[in-house]
Amino acid sequence: MLGLKLNQRTAASRAKAAVPARGRKACVSVRAAASGKVKKVVLAYSGGLDTSIILKWLQDTYGCEVVTFTADLGQGEELEPARAKAEKMGVKQIFIDDLREEFVRDYVFPMFRANALYEGTYLLGTSIARPLIAKRQIEIAKEVGADAVSHGATGKGNDQVRFEVGYYSLKPDIKVIAPWREWDLLSRTKLIEYAEQNGIPVPSTKRGEPPFSMDANLLHISYEGNALEDPWVSPDESMFTRSVSPEKAPDQPTVFELAFEKGNPVAVDGVAMSPAQLLTKLNELGGANGVGRVDLVESRFVGMKSRGVYETPGGTILQVAHRAIESITLDRGELHMKDDMMPRYAELVYNGFWFSPEREALQALVDKTQEYCTGTVKVKLYKGNVTVLGRKSPFSLYDKVIASFEDDKGLYNQADAGGFIKLQALRLRTLGVNRYKLL
Amino acid sequence: MLGLKLNQRTAASRAKAAVPARGRKACVSVRAAASGKVKKVVLAYSGGLDTSIILKWLQDTYGCEVVTFTADLGQGEELEPARAKAEKMGVKQIFIDDLREEFVRDYVFPMFRANALYEGTYLLGTSIARPLIAKRQIEIAKEVGADAVSHGATGKGNDQVRFEVGYYSLKPDIKVIAPWREWDLLSRTKLIEYAEQNGIPVPSTKRGEPPFSMDANLLHISYEGNALEDPWVSPDESMFTRSVSPEKAPDQPTVFELAFEKGNPVAVDGVAMSPAQLLTKLNELGGANGVGRVDLVESRFVGMKSRGVYETPGGTILQVAHRAIESITLDRGELHMKDDMMPRYAELVYNGFWFSPEREALQALVDKTQEYCTGTVKVKLYKGNVTVLGRKSPFSLYDKVIASFEDDKGLYNQADAGGFIKLQALRLRTLGVNRYKLL
Amino acid sequence: MLGLKLNQRTAASRAKAAVPARGRKACVSVRAAASGKVKKVVLAYSGGLDTSIILKWLQDTYGCEVVTFTADLGQGEELEPARAKAEKMGVKQIFIDDLREEFVRDYVFPMFRANALYEGTYLLGTSIARPLIAKRQIEIAKEVGADAVSHGATGKGNDQVRFEVGYYSLKPDIKVIAPWREWDLLSRTKLIEYAEQNGIPVPSTKRGEPPFSMDANLLHISYEGNALEDPWVSPDESMFTRSVSPEKAPDQPTVFELAFEKGNPVAVDGVAMSPAQLLTKLNELGGANGVGRVDLVESRFVGMKSRGVYETPGGTILQVAHRAIESITLDRGELHMKDDMMPRYAELVYNGFWFSPEREALQALVDKTQEYCTGTVKVKLYKGNVTVLGRKSPFSLYDKVIASFEDDKGLYNQADAGGFIKLQALRLRTLGVNRYKLL
Amino acid sequence: MLGLKLNQRTAASRAKAAVPARGRKACVSVRAAASGKVKKVVLAYSGGLDTSIILKWLQDTYGCEVVTFTADLGQGEELEPARAKAEKMGVKQIFIDDLREEFVRDYVFPMFRANALYEGTYLLGTSIARPLIAKRQIEIAKEVGADAVSHGATGKGNDQVRFEVGYYSLKPDIKVIAPWREWDLLSRTKLIEYAEQNGIPVPSTKRGEPPFSMDANLLHISYEGNALEDPWVSPDESMFTRSVSPEKAPDQPTVFELAFEKGNPVAVDGVAMSPAQLLTKLNELGGANGVGRVDLVESRFVGMKSRGVYETPGGTILQVAHRAIESITLDRGELHMKDDMMPRYAELVYNGFWFSPEREALQALVDKTQEYCTGTVKVKLYKGNVTVLGRKSPFSLYDKVIASFEDDKGLYNQADAGGFIKLQALRLRTLGVNRYKLL
Repeated sequence: MLGLKLNQRTAASRAKAAVPARGRKACVSVRAAASGKVKKVVLAYSGGLDTSIILKWLQDTYGCEVVTFTADLGQGEELEPARAKAEKMGVKQIFIDDLREEFVRDYVFPMFRANALYEGTYLLGTSIARPLIAKRQIEIAKEVGADAVSHGATGKGNDQVRFEVGYYSLKPDIKVIAPWREWDLLSRTKLIEYAEQNGIPVPSTKRGEPPFSMDANLLHISYEGNALEDPWVSPDESMFTRSVSPEKAPDQPTVFELAFEKGNPVAVDGVAMSPAQLLTKLNELGGANGVGRVDLVESRFVGMKSRGVYETPGGTILQVAHRAIESITLDRGELHMKDDMMPRYAELVYNGFWFSPEREALQALVDKTQEYCTGTVKVKLYKGNVTVLGRKSPFSLYDKVIASFEDDKGLYNQADAGGFIKLQALRLRTLGVNRYKLL
Repeated sequence: MLGLKLNQRTAASRAKAAVPARGRKACVSVRAAASGKVKKVVLAYSGGLDTSIILKWLQDTYGCEVVTFTADLGQGEELEPARAKAEKMGVKQIFIDDLREEFVRDYVFPMFRANALYEGTYLLGTSIARPLIAKRQIEIAKEVGADAVSHGATGKGNDQVRFEVGYYSLKPDIKVIAPWREWDLLSRTKLIEYAEQNGIPVPSTKRGEPPFSMDANLLHISYEGNALEDPWVSPDESMFTRSVSPEKAPDQPTVFELAFEKGNPVAVDGVAMSPAQLLTKLNELGGANGVGRVDLVESRFVGMKSRGVYETPGGTILQVAHRAIESITLDRGELHMKDDMMPRYAELVYNGFWFSPEREALQALVDKTQEYCTGTVKVKLYKGNVTVLGRKSPFSLYDKVIASFEDDKGLYNQADAGGFIKLQALRLRTLGVNRYKLL
Repeated sequence: MLGLKLNQRTAASRAKAAVPARGRKACVSVRAAASGKVKKVVLAYSGGLDTSIILKWLQDTYGCEVVTFTADLGQGEELEPARAKAEKMGVKQIFIDDLREEFVRDYVFPMFRANALYEGTYLLGTSIARPLIAKRQIEIAKEVGADAVSHGATGKGNDQVRFEVGYYSLKPDIKVIAPWREWDLLSRTKLIEYAEQNGIPVPSTKRGEPPFSMDANLLHISYEGNALEDPWVSPDESMFTRSVSPEKAPDQPTVFELAFEKGNPVAVDGVAMSPAQLLTKLNELGGANGVGRVDLVESRFVGMKSRGVYETPGGTILQVAHRAIESITLDRGELHMKDDMMPRYAELVYNGFWFSPEREALQALVDKTQEYCTGTVKVKLYKGNVTVLGRKSPFSLYDKVIASFEDDKGLYNQADAGGFIKLQALRLRTLGVNRYKLL
Repeated sequence: MLGLKLNQRTAASRAKAAVPARGRKACVSVRAAASGKVKKVVLAYSGGLDTSIILKWLQDTYGCEVVTFTADLGQGEELEPARAKAEKMGVKQIFIDDLREEFVRDYVFPMFRANALYEGTYLLGTSIARPLIAKRQIEIAKEVGADAVSHGATGKGNDQVRFEVGYYSLKPDIKVIAPWREWDLLSRTKLIEYAEQNGIPVPSTKRGEPPFSMDANLLHISYEGNALEDPWVSPDESMFTRSVSPEKAPDQPTVFELAFEKGNPVAVDGVAMSPAQLLTKLNELGGANGVGRVDLVESRFVGMKSRGVYETPGGTILQVAHRAIESITLDRGELHMKDDMMPRYAELVYNGFWFSPEREALQALVDKTQEYCTGTVKVKLYKGNVTVLGRKSPFSLYDKVIASFEDDKGLYNQADAGGFIKLQALRLRTLGVNRYKLL
């Protein structure tokens, strides 16, 4: 009977990954996760040089079978070459999944319902993709009977945390292999050598030190490292790939209407779209108008400050428009409650705690406030600016008669304000009297 | 002895207003504030039509002496005409004060140290000016022996609360007269009639219904009402006075350096400036580049939604730049603590609780974090965009060697990350095991 | 289609009261709530002297029909006498409802799931009963076609706010009559005179000034006023009615087991009970052992401090035991999130915002955390003390092997702690270096 | 010039430890903390078996000079034997410091000003002592020119974090040696063997597995482990050392007055006492009356749940009494702000972030609210109960005339409450209308 009730919790995102009928017996205990030998590992494989090296290194070092998993999260690269490369390296089980709709629907949109912004500026484009990759890796691990997973994130960044916290949450007894923290291929030279020794093709562009590292998905692209390491120096214009600069954007503004239902965008100019289609459309509109570049220094969870540059054209529009539709459909009490909790929500996503009970509890709070967050926002894009031209809703709480300064036919009794103020001030008057009475 | 200690609290902003040596005996009790007759009232007087009508109405209705107080908060109007008008109406005690430096130094800057943003969008330009006006009115009331104060805010807005909560906090036994909540001059026609009957000149532009009401000071100008009452319709370009539109801004960006000390801006391009000078300069730079327009629907403290349009050119730059200097000088712990409390701080200012112990306690928290918030931000303005090009500080917490992906000569042991993650995940692994063990 | 979706929100507690099929058209607008004449009023009627006077006063003053509503919330008084009294005063529609189960199940238990404690000490026994009374009054108003409601709360307390905010939330166009704020019967003498002139029997015990006012329900009884007004003087032992003093409690402890399911108590010593039965049982156990008295000074929502004494025997046990079962079934992340929000939740309930979207959003957060809050707590009561002797759960997150100081067979690698600490400290080390490097 | 200003931050507790004039140059960088050889280590030495073994192990393993530091924090043990033992083991620099006054004044009292309670129940007695020990170790390390510090905390507990985060914060380049995470003496048997091989006397009581581990200081004593590991089984009465059980406490209550100044207790029954004297006195009073035992399951920072039993007699009284004096001297606004932040404050202390900018910022908020927290509380102790009998203050905000239900001569206009409620409810009325208008 208890078992039945349990299913309710497992609902949400964690559900499928965590409790496949046949996997339940397996994950008896954290204790089983102790070292021992690895049989089969699921690698998050991009097909690029670094994860190809990791693939080989895993085969060599652990002597185990490697299963590759390549996800289309809208990063804008062809994925089929990854299949050929994996096959060539002897991989027998190859997973290439288009996760774009799931990514936007179940990860990006819930986060935007919360207006999440890390340290007041970062839209969390990298952070939000990691839990989904982790979840899918665990699903595959269960499907193919793998006892380990591996990823290509380095030992200094946030992504290792996001991947691994995800893995452990969803399959507590999983073995995690983080090559960058284990191997001795700690310089570019050593990596290239290793690749060449093992017949892994090294594109000429990858031979030198790269000017920066990138991470891309349908929500954003990020740039970090090397050429960006001095926070006093701004990035070179040639770096950007998802947006024109405001200077090069058209001289004519782009105006369109974005419709929301229960806090999620559902249509552009009246055309209904799926989540991934819609975000793609907003990216096009924003990118063409120089929208969504941010250059910042952020506080990493692992303890240091780092400098990142991001392009998030569609997400930038989405957050502005979502706040606008909330402004007329959310009551002040729920709006302020949400605002108070937003930095905490953003911190949880940034730190990698998507699959945590506290993020899920906060999401329950956020989603409760979005039930009537339905309506339309008119948006203008112009050379980097996102301007709200109008907002309307069948559930609008804005009442122009009550708000107006002129006669409202008795709807609002101005005398009430006198009593309101008197009682608001009573404690402060008492305080004033009290503080002076001994003087 | 206790009396002596008391002075420590009265410090801060409330100090001078609240406890002048000779005023102490007077404010014996809230109880004295009961109605009775009014002897002398200090009116916040702009010299405009509405407050001129109020002046006359106070003289007629209360048969009391009216003292006028006109403040220069940088609203950009000449104040001397107010003197002539007041004299003509028989006012004997006329106060015209330049409060611009005090306004920016003691009200605007402390608020910007907190990055205050109401409902994610409003920079609180009107809200922050009210407490200073209230405080100065109370100082004058004490100086001239007045027993009442009066203001021209309507009965539906937030300003009445901000003024009156300020009055009561600083002088609990003050009598407050809010003509708009008392009189029957509730239409424009009646007001004009009253003015004409009493020899108050009515400018032709004031005869019809005004298209919107405005409030201006050195931080911003606001527009509300009438022509703006439909939140689906965007404001007419002709309304704006402090900024060109992004479309009309120069095609060349403006780049400059803004220096901060302990969280306050102190110099532009190396030229040290007083607080009001500096904000004036930022307004010029921002206004010329189309920066700082916001159009929003906000939740008033008195319970309704209202639509406001704001121009805050300098403040917009200041907030972006302040976040940038914080990003390298504030530790993550203090930065996130501040961010968590920011919406609450903004709500307190918006609702009129500047002179409250909770705002002062929050300010103490904020100011503690600003002790090392010193450095320089390079800013680019371009057609409405405020872009951070660089940030540097003698106290920068950014360390490019620790942050970099490449060899850091042992400063950071990547293996530590493994342990870090393991312990971060332990509770979630236990949770996972626990949740499944009965299945 | 939208209409259909709307029903989802109205779910919860607000549902039935607010949107009966036939009542929908009626509540067109806030604007209809303007004064005008009253046809029929539903009075919250206890049958006591004060509300009997109010009944008569409503009939006389408003010349309207009065419908009485008397609720059994477990206050421990016979309710049938109220019927006879009402009949005698010509009331035709008399409602006497046993709301005890609804009260405990839908109001008390949800609040205890949040561990709500106002100002660190008050278990909110009065506050939580008001919304239910308000809701039932509104339901009756709709049923009988009344256009007004009335209550007997005074103009200085919190209860007037709790009642009226409830009324307005559930039926925005309702007319509210608050006799204590309207009439001139402002002294006991005048009240008694009015009663005698109108043939309302005045018990001899009610002729003099009462030593204190009381409010009782199944959760608690409160005492305020007169004899308790000096917070330096403790209440007389004779005042208490629900508990013996610790001094008079038995010399032998009482030990029992309290079972929880999803955060709600469901059984005592293995005997399943309905919510009201269970709280009754805990009250008996606690009262007999001197548990649950609190004497405090609290901050009223209407602005002043007030002194209250409360007896909450069962609630005191429940909160201690609920925290104990949470301690082993809630993950740290969700537990701390809840704790952080608890004071806010308590403030909302205290201030009367039970039927508000922000309380409902917080409740969604709280309830999300309670899904596995299932298990048993062994409690000892002894002369005022509530001691937890043990706690166990099928979902316990406590793992004695991981927690122990001794060998855990590799479950926890102590070396991980080194990395954990190093990364936790990294930002503070950087801070330290940074702060000193210029010295 | 900047250097001068820096000193302001270093003020507070971190000051002396961190920036002794001659030590500044030394702590150039985190980078210097890299491994290498250890010259001299300062060990937190209790004189007991475990830290004696550590002392020897450090000498053997690191071949370095060991300096011992033994602190009197009120744990109630003689410290001089530690000197003899250290001397016998060849230690040349021995520090034995009485830190009781500093402990209570600068650590315990600031924490009690915040009403800190971890997970609703734990008064943080162990947590609060660690930062002081860490600070003093670092001071000594600077004084004697040591390059490392060491402690005896295990690898599974919170204390290792508290010690080490403290060390790193105060001296970023310090080398930390945590023997329990490094050595292979992982069973009691191995430890005893090592002791015997090295001539360290092993008391017979230490030969077997101890029933639980203890930590004591002037604030509390804690018990953990072994016999306490089943959270369903309550501890044996014989374990407790600081308090009689409620059952064995006197039949007569103890009543006394506790005076506060600015949030700190300063006198008992009119007798002024130093911080440590006062806490000692409260411990005596509480312990004799069965006050302050808590048995709980807590969430450790390192990720697991653990069971702890605590005796905190004086602290329990102090928190109850502090809340009582706050209830009449703190305004609602500041009181609720404090309450909202309290769980966060407690978490920071529990997790070991005493020397962090966020704890210091929160302390600034808390301390701002305590400026008028002055007055007297009358307390009754009886068989485990701490009851507030009365509270008074020259700054009391409680005004019995305003609070009373009867005539207050116009101080409070009950009609104001009508307006207050109307405006409080306006948003909810609008919400109600809005939600139903489409139905």
